[in-house]
Parts: sequence; C-alpha cells; structure tokens
Amino acid sequence: MKELFHNLAQVTVIEDDPVVILGQQISLMWIVIGAALVIFMQAGFALVETGFCRAKHAVHVVSTNFAVFGLGFIGFFFIGFAFAFGGFSYSAFGMTAPVGKALIGSGDWIFLWQGGWALSGNAITPAVLGFFLYMVAFMDTTATIPTGSMAERWKWKSFVAWGLFCGAVYYPIIAAWTWGGGWLARTWSSMSLGAGYVDFAGSGVVHTVGGVAALTGAIVLGPRIGKFDKDGKARAMPGHHIPMAMIGSFILLFGWFGFNAASTFAATDVQFATAATNTAIAAAFGAITAMMWITRRTGKPDPAMMVNGMLGGLVAVTGACAFVAPWAAAVIGIVAGVLVIEAVFFIERKLKIDDPVGAIAVHGVCGVFGVLAVGIFANGSYGAGWNGSGSTGVSGIIKGDWGQLGAQALGAGVIIVVNGLLSYTFFKLQNKFTKGGIRSSAEDEIQGLDIPEMGVYAYPEFAGAR
Amino acid sequence: MKELFHNLAQVTVIEDDPVVILGQQISLMWIVIGAALVIFMQAGFALVETGFCRAKHAVHVVSTNFAVFGLGFIGFFFIGFAFAFGGFSYSAFGMTAPVGKALIGSGDWIFLWQGGWALSGNAITPAVLGFFLYMVAFMDTTATIPTGSMAERWKWKSFVAWGLFCGAVYYPIIAAWTWGGGWLARTWSSMSLGAGYVDFAGSGVVHTVGGVAALTGAIVLGPRIGKFDKDGKARAMPGHHIPMAMIGSFILLFGWFGFNAASTFAATDVQFATAATNTAIAAAFGAITAMMWITRRTGKPDPAMMVNGMLGGLVAVTGACAFVAPWAAAVIGIVAGVLVIEAVFFIERKLKIDDPVGAIAVHGVCGVFGVLAVGIFANGSYGAGWNGSGSTGVSGIIKGDWGQLGAQALGAGVIIVVNGLLSYTFFKLQNKFTKGGIRSSAEDEIQGLDIPEMGVYAYPEFAGAR
Amino acid sequence: MKELFHNLAQVTVIEDDPVVILGQQISLMWIVIGAALVIFMQAGFALVETGFCRAKHAVHVVSTNFAVFGLGFIGFFFIGFAFAFGGFSYSAFGMTAPVGKALIGSGDWIFLWQGGWALSGNAITPAVLGFFLYMVAFMDTTATIPTGSMAERWKWKSFVAWGLFCGAVYYPIIAAWTWGGGWLARTWSSMSLGAGYVDFAGSGVVHTVGGVAALTGAIVLGPRIGKFDKDGKARAMPGHHIPMAMIGSFILLFGWFGFNAASTFAATDVQFATAATNTAIAAAFGAITAMMWITRRTGKPDPAMMVNGMLGGLVAVTGACAFVAPWAAAVIGIVAGVLVIEAVFFIERKLKIDDPVGAIAVHGVCGVFGVLAVGIFANGSYGAGWNGSGSTGVSGIIKGDWGQLGAQALGAGVIIVVNGLLSYTFFKLQNKFTKGGIRSSAEDEIQGLDIPEMGVYAYPEFAGAR
Repeated sequence: MKELFHNLAQVTVIEDDPVVILGQQISLMWIVIGAALVIFMQAGFALVETGFCRAKHAVHVVSTNFAVFGLGFIGFFFIGFAFAFGGFSYSAFGMTAPVGKALIGSGDWIFLWQGGWALSGNAITPAVLGFFLYMVAFMDTTATIPTGSMAERWKWKSFVAWGLFCGAVYYPIIAAWTWGGGWLARTWSSMSLGAGYVDFAGSGVVHTVGGVAALTGAIVLGPRIGKFDKDGKARAMPGHHIPMAMIGSFILLFGWFGFNAASTFAATDVQFATAATNTAIAAAFGAITAMMWITRRTGKPDPAMMVNGMLGGLVAVTGACAFVAPWAAAVIGIVAGVLVIEAVFFIERKLKIDDPVGAIAVHGVCGVFGVLAVGIFANGSYGAGWNGSGSTGVSGIIKGDWGQLGAQALGAGVIIVVNGLLSYTFFKLQNKFTKGGIRSSAEDEIQGLDIPEMGVYAYPEFAGAR
Repeated sequence: MKELFHNLAQVTVIEDDPVVILGQQISLMWIVIGAALVIFMQAGFALVETGFCRAKHAVHVVSTNFAVFGLGFIGFFFIGFAFAFGGFSYSAFGMTAPVGKALIGSGDWIFLWQGGWALSGNAITPAVLGFFLYMVAFMDTTATIPTGSMAERWKWKSFVAWGLFCGAVYYPIIAAWTWGGGWLARTWSSMSLGAGYVDFAGSGVVHTVGGVAALTGAIVLGPRIGKFDKDGKARAMPGHHIPMAMIGSFILLFGWFGFNAASTFAATDVQFATAATNTAIAAAFGAITAMMWITRRTGKPDPAMMVNGMLGGLVAVTGACAFVAPWAAAVIGIVAGVLVIEAVFFIERKLKIDDPVGAIAVHGVCGVFGVLAVGIFANGSYGAGWNGSGSTGVSGIIKGDWGQLGAQALGAGVIIVVNGLLSYTFFKLQNKFTKGGIRSSAEDEIQGLDIPEMGVYAYPEFAGAR
Repeated sequence: MKELFHNLAQVTVIEDDPVVILGQQISLMWIVIGAALVIFMQAGFALVETGFCRAKHAVHVVSTNFAVFGLGFIGFFFIGFAFAFGGFSYSAFGMTAPVGKALIGSGDWIFLWQGGWALSGNAITPAVLGFFLYMVAFMDTTATIPTGSMAERWKWKSFVAWGLFCGAVYYPIIAAWTWGGGWLARTWSSMSLGAGYVDFAGSGVVHTVGGVAALTGAIVLGPRIGKFDKDGKARAMPGHHIPMAMIGSFILLFGWFGFNAASTFAATDVQFATAATNTAIAAAFGAITAMMWITRRTGKPDPAMMVNGMLGGLVAVTGACAFVAPWAAAVIGIVAGVLVIEAVFFIERKLKIDDPVGAIAVHGVCGVFGVLAVGIFANGSYGAGWNGSGSTGVSGIIKGDWGQLGAQALGAGVIIVVNGLLSYTFFKLQNKFTKGGIRSSAEDEIQGLDIPEMGVYAYPEFAGAR
C-alpha cells in the first residue's frame, strides 16, 4: 500500500498543537495545488494526441480528451471513489490510515465502503474533498490514455461508455488494491518481499493500468484503414500539427510536478523536493536519450520520438521518484528513452498494432518498467514501515535486496492480467452489443470523423485541412 | 460583503504568536499563487475566443485579449483599486476588515479613500500588494468578457478605451459594494435577509458584471455582417480553430482553481479544498450535461457547446463554491449545462443578438444563476457572521431560509440595472463621439480586421486563412 | 551577491523550533512550485519563437526549444551545478550561506567544489535537490534565448553543442560570481559601492547572459537569406502564427511569477508579494507602452511589438522587483516598452543583425537596463546586509546613492565583456571546426529546415505551410 497518510498520521498524534494544525492545513493546500496541476495535464494530453493525429480527425481527438475529464469524473464521483477508498474510516484530519478493507484481501474478501458515494455523508470534510480532487485527477489521467491509441477510428458513443466505466470501475480496482489499503500492497509485505508492492505516484496504478487498456482497445478496434499495406508493412501517418504536440509535452512536464511531488501529501515531508527533481531529471534524460537513439536509427531527431522519450522518462520515474537517488533517476530516464522507441517499433512492426500516438509504449511499457524500477533502484532512504512492513526504507537490488523487485514484478503481473482481461472483455462485449461495433464506419473514417461524429471541422478555413 | 479578511482578522488577534505569523505569511503566498493562476486565465480566454472566431480576424481577437490585461491593469492601478478598496484602513498584517465606507452607503454616501492611488502611500505593504495582484486579476477577467461578444467588428481604439474604463471605473463599483465593505453586502444583512448579499468568488462581481457589458456592447455594435439573413434567420459562422478553443477551456479550468479556492485568502481556512472540489464538480457536470443536451437537440456533441457547458458550470459555481455540498455543485453544473445552451439559442434566435463566442450566455446568464444558487443551495456550514450578520452560516432554501435568496436576487438585480445602464451609456456615448462610431467599417469587417487594424495576418502562409 | 539563503540563514538560528522547521518546509515547497513555473516558461518561449518564425522552419524552432531543456539540464546536472554552487558548504537545512569561494575571487582564485557533480555525495538533501531544480530552470531559460535569434538557419548538431555548453560552462560562471558567493557580488560591496552588485532574480545572470549569446550567435551565423536586400534594407519576414506567439507570452508572464516571486526562497519572507506585483506591473506597462509607441511609429499596434513590450518589461523588472516601489516598476515597464522597440529597429536597421524574434532586444538590452534599474530605483526597504555589506537596504539614485548604480554598471560591463568574449569564441571555434560551419546550407534554409534536419513537416496537411 502507498501510505497515503503516513505523514499525516505521524503528525496527528499531537493534533491540538497549533504548529501541527498549521502543517496539516498547508498540506491540504499542497494537495489542492497538486490536483490543479494534474488536472491541467488533460490539456497536455489533448495537445499531444491531437497534434499527432490527422487534421480530419482533430475535433474528434481533442474532444475525446476534453470530454473524458467529465465522463471519468462523473463515474468516479458517483461510484469509483467509494469503490477505491471507501475503506478509509475518515477520522483525524478528516481521514485516518486505511483500515485494511479492500475489494479482495485482508480477510474480508469483499469491499466494505463506509461512505463516499457521490461524496455524501457526514464524513465528507474539506480534507476528504481535497483528497478526492487529487485522486479524481489521477483517474482522469488513466482514462485519457486509450484516447490516444484508439484515436481516429473510435465511435463517440463507445468512447463515452469507456469514460464512465473507467471512472466508476476500471481505475478504482488497482487504486484500491495499491493505495486504498488493499491486498496487493499488503500481501507481499507480510511475505517479506521488501516493503510489499509500492508505487509512489502511479507508474502502475495510473500508467500501466491506462496503457493496458490502450493496448486491448487498439487490438479490438484494429488498425486504421491504410496503416498497413498488403504485405503488412506499416505506413507513416504523420501528425498534422507538430508544434501542438511539443507544447503539449511541456504542459505534461509541468503538471507532472503536481503528479509526483504532491504525492507526499504532506507539505511537511520534504521528500517532495526529491520527487520533483527526480521527475525533471528523468524527463531530461529521457528526451535527450530518445533524441540520440532515434538519430542513430533513422538519421534524424524525430520530434515525435523526442516527445515520447520525455514522456517515457516521466512515466517510468513516477513510481520510484521518492525512493531513488538522482543518478538513478537519470538511468531510469535513459532506459526509458531507448525503451519507448524500441517499443513503438515493436508494437507497430512486430505486433502490427496501430497506436497513432505511441500511448501503449509510453504508458504501458514504460509504466511496467517504472514499477520494476522501484525494485531495482530504491536506496532505502524513504518509505520506512510502509505497508505495515518492518522495512526501514524501500530498498531495491542496488541495496542487495531482491525481495522488493519480486513484489514489484508480482504487482506488475497482477495489473497486466487483471486489467488486461477486464479491459479486453469490456471492449469486446461493448463491440458485440453495439450496433455496428465500437469502430467508426469505414466511410466516416476515410472522410474524417469530425463532420459525421462532431458536426464541425477543426479548421474550416485552412485549405487542405478538411 | 465578502469578508475578505475574515480569516486574517481572526488570527491577528494574537499576532505576535509565531505560528499565527507563519500562517499569515503562507496565506499571502496562497494569494500570490492564486493571482498567478487567475492571470493565466487570460491565455484561456484568448484561446477560446480566438478559436471560435474566423481566421481573418484572429490577430485582432487574440490581441484584444492580450492588450486588455495591460489596459485594465493600468486603469485599476491608477484609479480602480483605490476606488474599490480605498475604504480599507490597512493596519494589522497590512490590512484590516473594511471600515464600512463605500461609494454609496453606510452613512457616508461618498467614497472615502485613504490611500491606494497608483499604489502609493505608506500603507502599501507586501500584503496590500498581494491583495492588489489578486484583485487586479479578477478585474481583468471582467474586462476580457466583452472582447468575446464584440469580436470581429470592434475598432481597436474603441476597445482600448473600454479596457481603461473597465479597470478604472466599471469593475470597481460592484467590487466596492460587494467585497469592499459597501452597502450592497451590508444593507440586506441588516434587513435580516440571510447573511446579506454574498458572492464568494465572483459569479456576480466578475461574471455578471462582465456579461452585462458583453450584452450591451453587442447590442450597440449590432450583429456581424451576414450573421442574420433577410428573414432574420441566424447563419452559422464556424470558429476557425476548434482545438485552440478546447485547450483554452482547460487553461480556464486550471486557472479557476486560483479564482475560487484562493478566495478563502487564508491558507489556514481549509474551506479552500471544498471550493476547489466543488469547482471541478461543476465543470465536469456542466461539460457532460451540455454534451448530452446538445446531442439531444442537434444530434451531435458540438464542441463549442461542450466548452460553453464547462465554462457555464464554472461561472455558476463561483459564487457558491464554499457554501455548498458536492451534490449541490453537481446540480449547479447540470443546470448551467442546460441553461447555457438554451441561452445561446435564445440570445441568437429570439433576441437576434450576435455573440460570436457565447460570452453573454456563459458569463451573464450563468453568472446570474450563480448568484442565485447561493440562496438556493448554501448549506449553512460556512460564512458565519459575514456582513456583520448574526448568521451562523450562509443558508439557502434547502435549509428552509428564503431570505438569502431574496438578498441574492436583489444583488443580481442591482448589478443588472447599474452595470447595464453604465455600460450601455458608455458604449452609446463612445459610439456617438467616436468618428465613424465604435464599429469597424464594413470594408474592414469583410476583409478581416487583421490587416487594416493590426497590420499583420494571423497565418500569412496558410492557404485559405487570409 | 544575491543572498540566496539570507532568509533561511536567519531562521536556522533556532532550528529545533517546530515553527521554524515548518517554515523551512514550506519554503522548500515554495521553491519547488517556483521551479515548476519557471520550467513551464520553456513552453512560452517555444510558442513565441515558433509563432514568430516561418512555417517551413516550425518543427526545427519548436524542437530546439524542446531539446534545449534536456541538453542544458544534462550539462548542468553533470558539471554546471557544482561549478556554480559547489562552494556552498551544505549544512543547516541542507545548505548554508556560501563560504565565499568562487571561480575567481575571495582570495581563492580557483573554484573549490565540495560536492554536486551529478548530484552525488552525502550532501545531497531534499533541500539541495529543490535548490538544484530551481537553478536548473533558470539556466534553461538562459539556454533558450539564443534559439530565437539564431532561428531558421542553425544546424541541429551545432545547436546541441550549445545546449550542453550553456548548461555546463556558459551559464554557471556569472551565476557563481553573482549568486554563488563569487567576487562579482562581493568585491564592490567591500569597495562601498552600495551593497555591491545585486541581481534579485536574474536580469543579469539570466537575461543579459542569454541576450549576449543571442547577439554573438546571430553575428556568427549572419542574417537569413533574403533578410536584407542589396541596399542593406531589411525586409519583413512575418511570423507564421501570431496567436501562438501571443499565447506564449501569457505563459511566460505566468511562469515569471515563479521566476521572480519565488526568488525570495523563503515563503516566510513576504517580500515575494512585492516581487510578484511589481512583475505584473512592469508587464502591463511594458505591453501598453509598446502598443502606443509602435502605433506612433507605424500607425498600427503591431502584435509582435506588444509581445516584446511585455517581455521587455518583465526582463527589466526581474533584477529589481524586490527592491522597488510599485511606481518604479511602472516606470521600468514604460522605459522597457520604448527601449525594446527602438532596440529592435536599431539592431536590424543600423547593426544589420538579423534576430527573427527580437531576443537580443528583449533579453540583452532590457536585461542590461534591468541591472541598472536596481541602481536607480531601489528604495532601501529590502536587502539589508546583502553581500556582507553594512547596507540597511539596497538603495539607488532615488535615495541619493550613486554607488549602487556604479556597482550595477560594473556588473553589467563584466557580463557583457566576459560572456560576449566567451560566447563569440565558442560560436567562432565551433564554426571553424564543424564541417560546413554551424550554419545550415543555403539549400536547406531555402527549402525550410524541417525536412532536411528533422525529417517531418510541421503541418503536412495545411496548404501553403510546407
């Protein structure tokens, strides 16, 4: 379990101390600032995905990124939040450490919620609302990821169902199991695999979970018309607005400081500075490594690969950013910068899966690497006692402990299996019970989805763009 | 009156306590962060308005949004700030609660300023400067609103005069009356209409005030050439860059956390988390409700209406965000999502008023609804003693109190009448005394304002865009 | 010297006081928030520079702005940070005031680093990491500046070398001398020239240093083909996307609050509010003054000049923002608004130097003015004891003290000479030892750099844009 309130729990021991109270108030401010930054990442995803798609689908792509914020939000508001975090007993400072009840595990085997449906109930204090805001932002990041891999050929109505499903059911499962006091975090802790499965800010909970849905969704939809020629050779379908995509990546970098640094929850836990700086380090090394790697492979510093290198570095460092030294963040970024390019090529050329923006490689592949990176690079300086373990700090292979890597590998495996099955089943069933399937008609796809689905052109006046 | 320094006033009782001092310092930091976020909203407005206009006017539209920041700022710097908040006596922590002097009311019947012209005088402490920064950002939001409804046909020089006028005179009036210790807030409090007129973060002070000017300005200018055909039927004039508009709405959402949450002023008042989360809830429900409503009406999830639904939800929750429960924020968003669409249609089809971006519906109509929403949904948990009332918390109809709604309705009525008359008179007089009027020549409008007014094309190389 | 830890040093006197500790924790949060904002400025620079360039080079321009973040970062990570700030002894709260050792000066004449290579060593606490993050962001701003003046004709590989060089060597020198306890700050303090050379947030360290490289780089590259006709008359080469440039300027304004306000380092030093508000004042007056000045000169409110006016005001107030009264910030903005326009014309028409975006005028000329402005407008209310002086507050001519202006002029002179020689030598040597020189081939330049250098078009579908 991610000890969400580890820091808060410490300070609430003397909670009528005015200094402690002030610290808690500032911590809540920190969470709200973090939530705003993560929500702003939606704009970054919208720009990256729209820029990398073709002009005739631009309204559709940008609109899925826009609407998924509200769709996922509503699903999470009514159901998902209680589903993921209902096990909390909400006491001191509005919350306590989770009581260990979760969907499956800890002796309960069913999820016991004690509140949180539609944010109703007496327990809904400002602190709980701030926590909800931060968590709903993470969920929305997950929900956005498949809009990239499934772009240019996904029916609007089918997409709408995904947004609601992700917020209500799909995202909350691993969130509950990892951060909500669930079995996934606790089980391997009690089995003495390091501190059990840990994921500081969501390489697993957010990015792998989203990346797996991006993968199964792209498989169910199939490739865009014309993506592969008769011999199965992939054709380039260049993005229609490269500056848009690059600016989007900067917005993502900016928002990622909220994603990772504010995941300390406590403003009084200065490890947020370590998390923030490691985030930037991995982004920088990821971008430049990808620049060099793609230049080596193709002769040019392809901007799409530079962007994906930065994003891959960010995804990969997310789970480990509070646990590792700066040099390790650099190594994580370097590995991610190579990995993301090789994964893009492998997915396209070997698996013949069409992912217009590289979402599977960025979030899925680098997400899994990020989960494992905790077990490799964690240096034992942070995370003492997490998951109820006797650990003095999360420690990976570099500290001679292979147990943590075991817990991480098991965690990644669970996500891949559970979310793979769940999302594949969802898309398959949806495809079966939707008239004409979840994929747009060939006619609409060739014409561009903007007019048939959305009713407007992205750029009605720019010649060539409609 | 919005008790701007309610929170600060409490803590300054024991102001040599180091914990209190630290809390005040952090509160000032919170205000500065909030101000930066609100100022960033200018970029959001610029993108939304420019994206929804046509390419031949794009430089003009984006430039009005750019320049209004500085124009309004200068008017507010020299005159408006003293005009709105000069009644403060500036003592503890740089400010005290207002002394009740305002333009009209409280026995003075004239506005007594004690400082603040061009931010001069001994009273200008860092706290006053931080407060100024936050307030000037709110003023600039107001000033920007008419640049949408008056787009594509407004002379640059006439616009310049508006910017200065809004900052110096137009905005400060209601700000003084509502937030500056003025009669509008206090009078109905003393008449036992709830806690008197309250507006947490500006559904009235900012959005209704701006929306009213957007309405009168659009009336004085008249519709764009070709907007209505001979039979008075409105023609669609599609925005030239839909992704631009959608990204703008995300920037607005992001900045709105500064607008609403930082309006607690005190970082030690954790109700900022309630305000922030209610803001996001209303945005999500507004966007998705509008998506469904416009699909029901036209068959497609029109992106412009989705954007306006989100913005309508944001505007409507602004006044109430600290006073209501999450379910009420959802209801406010839902109502706003429907209301904004119906208002857009009504204004265009029934009133025959041409508003290229929907500013009147978003800010004016949803702003009035937001003012009233306080009187409907406030749940009594916040705002004890505001406006000098004996209230234990602002309470609306849902708590069985109709008095608050009365105060809100009177407040909205005053804004509509006073600002309606003032802005209509301003534009009319300006139109009369400007050679050729405040509207661009038909020749310039047809050609596009960019070359005749600004001297450059927005996109000199994109075929079709000039 | 900028007393980076002046504020922190004060509070660490009683560092086991829980209030003091909490204040330090919040200060670190403030630095991290500031760093995120400054890093986001990269997006602003990317938009401004790309918008003002031509479509056929758009991928190249936006990609240099993207990649320079990582390139400069890596140079600074491995070498530059230790080079600039290695003299710190890192004790209380992770750092102490610098011990006066720097590249040249203070009796050492060599730079003694005690740690910081690749952020390794025991001294790397969260506080040091937060400080690194803030400082690397400032460095990257510097590194970005020449990408504007050298746009449209700079080989990618030559640019890559610049990014690494700037982060590793070029930026750290003046940073060490000014903010790292170096001789430039201390020497003139001991000579009783005011409080010695001071630069609050980097008019000199960042903007002049970057502007000088922009100048020498543009000289070495020479003007774009077709920029000057046979008679040496400059031709207009209009930017291809004006809305993009204007939005970029708003992002810069937003990020500048992190740049200037967070330069107090301490959240407990409320002068951050003064810095933030003066920043906004100078931006507003700079933009509107430039609007009026260019209208007077050419008859139209040219958007490029309005943008440069705002940026010029921001650059000019950066060094002085904590030391001056609001009226002085307004005057600084007004002067910068005129200065930047005249400088753009002078550089283009008299010096015949081609600077596609006006970077030399904005950062170089307004940067020097900003350095001098401290010596003119500082009002003695802030900066007591800085640089080890007996000063009761930095005071300029307006307080009757000409010594501070002397120190500032000497500081500006040193930057111009040292960085001018260093950057000119760097570009000249690079030009000599690079096959074909650092300038793109005429063929590539005429075709547009995007395909030959980057392999993709910016807008492959927009007619006219490739």
